[in-house]
Amino acid sequence: MPQTDLPAFDRATAVTRTEAGGLVAELDPGWDVGGGILNGGYLLSVVGRAALLESPHPHPVAVSASYLRAPAAGPATLTVVPGAAGRTLAHSLVTLADAAGPALTVTVTTATLGTDAPQWSEPTPDAPPVEECVSIAEHRDLAPPGVPVPGLSLRVDTRLDPATAGWAFGRPSREPRLRAWMRFTDGREPDPLALLTFADALPPTSFALGDLGWAPTVQLQVLVRALPAPGWCLVEARSSEIAGGWLDEDYRIWDSTGRLVAQSRQLARSPRRR
Amino acid sequence: MPQTDLPAFDRATAVTRTEAGGLVAELDPGWDVGGGILNGGYLLSVVGRAALLESPHPHPVAVSASYLRAPAAGPATLTVVPGAAGRTLAHSLVTLADAAGPALTVTVTTATLGTDAPQWSEPTPDAPPVEECVSIAEHRDLAPPGVPVPGLSLRVDTRLDPATAGWAFGRPSREPRLRAWMRFTDGREPDPLALLTFADALPPTSFALGDLGWAPTVQLQVLVRALPAPGWCLVEARSSEIAGGWLDEDYRIWDSTGRLVAQSRQLARSPRRR
Repeated sequence: MPQTDLPAFDRATAVTRTEAGGLVAELDPGWDVGGGILNGGYLLSVVGRAALLESPHPHPVAVSASYLRAPAAGPATLTVVPGAAGRTLAHSLVTLADAAGPALTVTVTTATLGTDAPQWSEPTPDAPPVEECVSIAEHRDLAPPGVPVPGLSLRVDTRLDPATAGWAFGRPSREPRLRAWMRFTDGREPDPLALLTFADALPPTSFALGDLGWAPTVQLQVLVRALPAPGWCLVEARSSEIAGGWLDEDYRIWDSTGRLVAQSRQLARSPRRR
Repeated sequence: MPQTDLPAFDRATAVTRTEAGGLVAELDPGWDVGGGILNGGYLLSVVGRAALLESPHPHPVAVSASYLRAPAAGPATLTVVPGAAGRTLAHSLVTLADAAGPALTVTVTTATLGTDAPQWSEPTPDAPPVEECVSIAEHRDLAPPGVPVPGLSLRVDTRLDPATAGWAFGRPSREPRLRAWMRFTDGREPDPLALLTFADALPPTSFALGDLGWAPTVQLQVLVRALPAPGWCLVEARSSEIAGGWLDEDYRIWDSTGRLVAQSRQLARSPRRR
């Protein structure tokens, strides 16, 4: 039975156990990146939730997914094979499948995260205040002509630093880098499962260069480093190399206190030019 | 039958098919990081070789491994479960196990790499010439007192940039960053399988801070971006955060022409202080 009082993210990522003991989810068509394709980070949050149901530890700390193909919205099954588990951490292998077969193969490591002050941390980048940034959902110029705003942008409030939003105003950058404030539109506070979605929620870094095509994720690793404080997260994505039909996207996510709370890296196919 | 004319790396990572059709390897005790623990990158090269035997494509491009436990040197089995495969890329899931059970669970994506000039690439860092750098194998100060030089350092010739070698001379840095030239000691040229080893072959980044303990890898992702040119590779590792008993290590590897050829990121447990 749907729990309509839950925040949108928790409803859309809910995983339930069937009477036979299996895990199932209802993939929500509202978390798409356009063209009916569900966001890879959203799918990873569903997988993370399934892994936690079978883990002795409460948080995902390292999650690596191979994206075999884009699953359809609707019913999905989640198969969790527990691996080695100890006092500090536990491993598992999770497969997300829809009616057409496996879509994601994911290795998940769970543990208990804290908010301990880091022994060492990179400096947090500067970003202008949220109110000076550009809302992807509100700013129609950010969608390529004729393309509706993706569902993901309506559910994850994404405010681009104007310094990395030039591509939306006909002034592409020479650097594949995007930076934005991010939170759920309904005010649901961030947690480790939310960070799995945020870690793939910006447009492809190649957008910064003016290349407004979809860049399908091939393999994505997310590390969650600490429990995020309430409020906006700052999310930065950049590429090290775009070559031979491939690009990497490297994310770092800081919470509202400036603490690094997650990192991700993905290999994606270069955008198909429109 | 051992092929003694092969370079050390190819002998140590050889994977053979049994009459029953299974894949086996003989993990070589000579690729340890001290205390009989085999290097995680070395193990990944063995896994990569197994994946290629079952793949329609010749190169590993994305490899993510969960390290369940340290396998013993000696006989190991490799189980490859093919996933989706297409004209551009193929996925598989590989398990490396020794007599005590599974040790690594690895998702592997294979494809065909080239040497096409990048459309975009980060600048290559400066490093002094190899002959001005510090050999880890030759420089005894680099091993903690009473600890023999690990086998890995004898087989992978590693020359630290003096700017990141202060820790070996009682002058630890404030930044967890290491940079070194790297090649196989016997002159075997780099290729994508070799890059899987190089992507975990530096000491832990916490060594730079003077913290000379082992940092066991929990999960490691390696992306191979291009076929490396012959000669020395430049390998840089740095951490974004050390906190709560965890650290990340982020590697970038450039070939002798200055081309970015691989990237990796791992989550590891912070060193146990000696």
